[in-house]
Amino acid sequence: MNYNTLAVRRDGRILHVDFDNPPLNLMTVEMVGELFDLAGKLVFDQETSVVVLGSTHPEFFIAHFDIGDIFRALNDPDVPQSKYADINVVQALTTMWEALPQVTIGLVDGICRGAGLEFLLATHMRFATPESRFCFPEASSGFLPTGGGTTRLALQIGPARAREVLLSARDFDGTEAAAYGIVNRSLPADDICAYVDDLAQRLATRSAGTVTAVNQVMAKVYNSALDAQFSGFAVENDAMRTLLAVPAVQQHLRQLAELQDVDHELDLPASITQAAAATAAK
Amino acid sequence: MNYNTLAVRRDGRILHVDFDNPPLNLMTVEMVGELFDLAGKLVFDQETSVVVLGSTHPEFFIAHFDIGDIFRALNDPDVPQSKYADINVVQALTTMWEALPQVTIGLVDGICRGAGLEFLLATHMRFATPESRFCFPEASSGFLPTGGGTTRLALQIGPARAREVLLSARDFDGTEAAAYGIVNRSLPADDICAYVDDLAQRLATRSAGTVTAVNQVMAKVYNSALDAQFSGFAVENDAMRTLLAVPAVQQHLRQLAELQDVDHELDLPASITQAAAATAAK
Amino acid sequence: MNYNTLAVRRDGRILHVDFDNPPLNLMTVEMVGELFDLAGKLVFDQETSVVVLGSTHPEFFIAHFDIGDIFRALNDPDVPQSKYADINVVQALTTMWEALPQVTIGLVDGICRGAGLEFLLATHMRFATPESRFCFPEASSGFLPTGGGTTRLALQIGPARAREVLLSARDFDGTEAAAYGIVNRSLPADDICAYVDDLAQRLATRSAGTVTAVNQVMAKVYNSALDAQFSGFAVENDAMRTLLAVPAVQQHLRQLAELQDVDHELDLPASITQAAAATAAK
Repeated sequence: MNYNTLAVRRDGRILHVDFDNPPLNLMTVEMVGELFDLAGKLVFDQETSVVVLGSTHPEFFIAHFDIGDIFRALNDPDVPQSKYADINVVQALTTMWEALPQVTIGLVDGICRGAGLEFLLATHMRFATPESRFCFPEASSGFLPTGGGTTRLALQIGPARAREVLLSARDFDGTEAAAYGIVNRSLPADDICAYVDDLAQRLATRSAGTVTAVNQVMAKVYNSALDAQFSGFAVENDAMRTLLAVPAVQQHLRQLAELQDVDHELDLPASITQAAAATAAK
Repeated sequence: MNYNTLAVRRDGRILHVDFDNPPLNLMTVEMVGELFDLAGKLVFDQETSVVVLGSTHPEFFIAHFDIGDIFRALNDPDVPQSKYADINVVQALTTMWEALPQVTIGLVDGICRGAGLEFLLATHMRFATPESRFCFPEASSGFLPTGGGTTRLALQIGPARAREVLLSARDFDGTEAAAYGIVNRSLPADDICAYVDDLAQRLATRSAGTVTAVNQVMAKVYNSALDAQFSGFAVENDAMRTLLAVPAVQQHLRQLAELQDVDHELDLPASITQAAAATAAK
Repeated sequence: MNYNTLAVRRDGRILHVDFDNPPLNLMTVEMVGELFDLAGKLVFDQETSVVVLGSTHPEFFIAHFDIGDIFRALNDPDVPQSKYADINVVQALTTMWEALPQVTIGLVDGICRGAGLEFLLATHMRFATPESRFCFPEASSGFLPTGGGTTRLALQIGPARAREVLLSARDFDGTEAAAYGIVNRSLPADDICAYVDDLAQRLATRSAGTVTAVNQVMAKVYNSALDAQFSGFAVENDAMRTLLAVPAVQQHLRQLAELQDVDHELDLPASITQAAAATAAK
């Protein structure tokens, strides 16, 4: 399992998967492909019972989707993209991860925005440091999270808080992410790795019968939400096509692409404001 | 847009709507009519993208529904009232506000009880100061919130906390309202206006495409809850007719109507106890 | 109402039911029978409007289901057990309590694990001291909560936190139980009894019309979740039969049964680790 954008390490029945795409841990088309490949292997991997998803980068879990790749996907027929009207590539990827037979744990100690947060919402449980920063920046650039994130956020934290997070496009920290129910709990940076390691070790000893039965109960309980989830995906997908075709949105994203470096990404909301001003000045 | 019970002020694409019905900001039949009128205009108002709902009164967001108007509505054929079995006037009003194409924000810094809390639960996002006080006092007078509030509370915060809030009829503060998920978050009194202003300014720049798509995802995700919502409304509505016809409830409300002043409203639960004792003494 | 495992005391319209099965307040087959008997009486008891469920024991609310009785139920045809494929005895018991016309309040000041937590999740509102300890230990012994607890937890607190609680099998305190939405709120040990007494007194004065209408709204709002609940129960029930028949699970439970005393129960997760090691050493 050698990947260019993922560092994968086995520890018994636990697989540690760290996003490893410096300098920003952008989610790229390549990373999406590798995450599909890994998920495909996990479906048939009976040796792995727990997957811990983290980052090799001290500051970024995942910055967001690579804007350059968004344009390439829009314009280049050779870039893989969804052929279906109702579900797109990132929605399919996150749904595949959500449906894995293993228990997946997201461990966030850094910046987790856009597609990074969309991916996190598809993990089975999530922990974050209080200093971590989360954001769905899409609305401030004229679109919305379209990799399943708009729908999953609404399903998971209710409409009032979901609308706020989606439309404000503000940064918020790990403490608030826990209060809003986006992560299970927040844990101090000094403790989080030991805590998640210990949890993963314990989960790795659970019998297949227990894990399967818990997964089946979850499926029964949330079965009625599945239709809602896929209906939401279809709206996201449709909006993605429409909004990314808007010239002003494309112009804004081109400005933003030029600011896609560590300095500007640390305070992304401010950089988006800067890009918006540059776009408006044209 | 001149109203007797609402102070309306435009700031670009933001409309500030402050409840302004001194001395208690009671929700009256007149206010309901004005809120219908305003909502009707907003449906076709493409200049307004955000509505901030607050109060001109330092102590009251909305005290509750005017008890005098409840009796007038029961007895006076000239007072407008629901002609339908399954939905009443306040349920229709809150549903109309809930369905507005604009983003609505509730800002509570004071007392928000009864119909005020019912209205708040129909806004798209809500913020409150820690010192604010919330209450559904209805159960202590022999009825229950019947303007959509019983149903929306159950849908939004789950049965265990909803039953407690509804049946205890206790006052609770903004910190607890946030912990129970009734408001998005609580913010210090010194900060809340600046925070909500800044949020509203940012929301006002969101593209119509983004807001519409987010609203559509919400609709898809919560579509299955709509049947539940209207079924709940029908039960509320039926209970309203039955319970407000009970002589002891009417007697109690008449006692309470005499205490409908600022002093007694500051500690409404205590005043209700006093009214109940006076009713029992007869 | 004389029971061997329940101390029942009437205070006007309030019935105080304290689990009273020293030394551990284990839920036994006898206690299940007495809880069915009491629920059956409450269905027709129009004098009781509130039921407060607590414990006579300073340290244990309910330790968990008696392991000895699990084996007796498996092997002894004279022990009452479910004759139905889709619902078992404890699922039926908790559903019967959940559906009572009275308002039920759980008051936890101590250890509440396994079947105790399953029962608590079926009460209408719940309060706990910060020092209380909660746990679903089942996964660490190779099975899962099968008295409705897996399903109710998923329905009540969402999949991410439910999976963590179920699969980690870790102890957590009352503060976290409140943060996760498992109890309504946590209250200091010095205040909780007075708080719940005062609440119960107020609830006892609520009119039957109000309580019935609130219950009907809840039923309408959560009607669509009922199918999910019973589907979840069927999976639990099926997993119970399968997993309790696994020789390694039975061997582990026999080891654990020998540690079923106050000292070992205070830190049950550690005792389970000890039992697992003993089982592995064989």
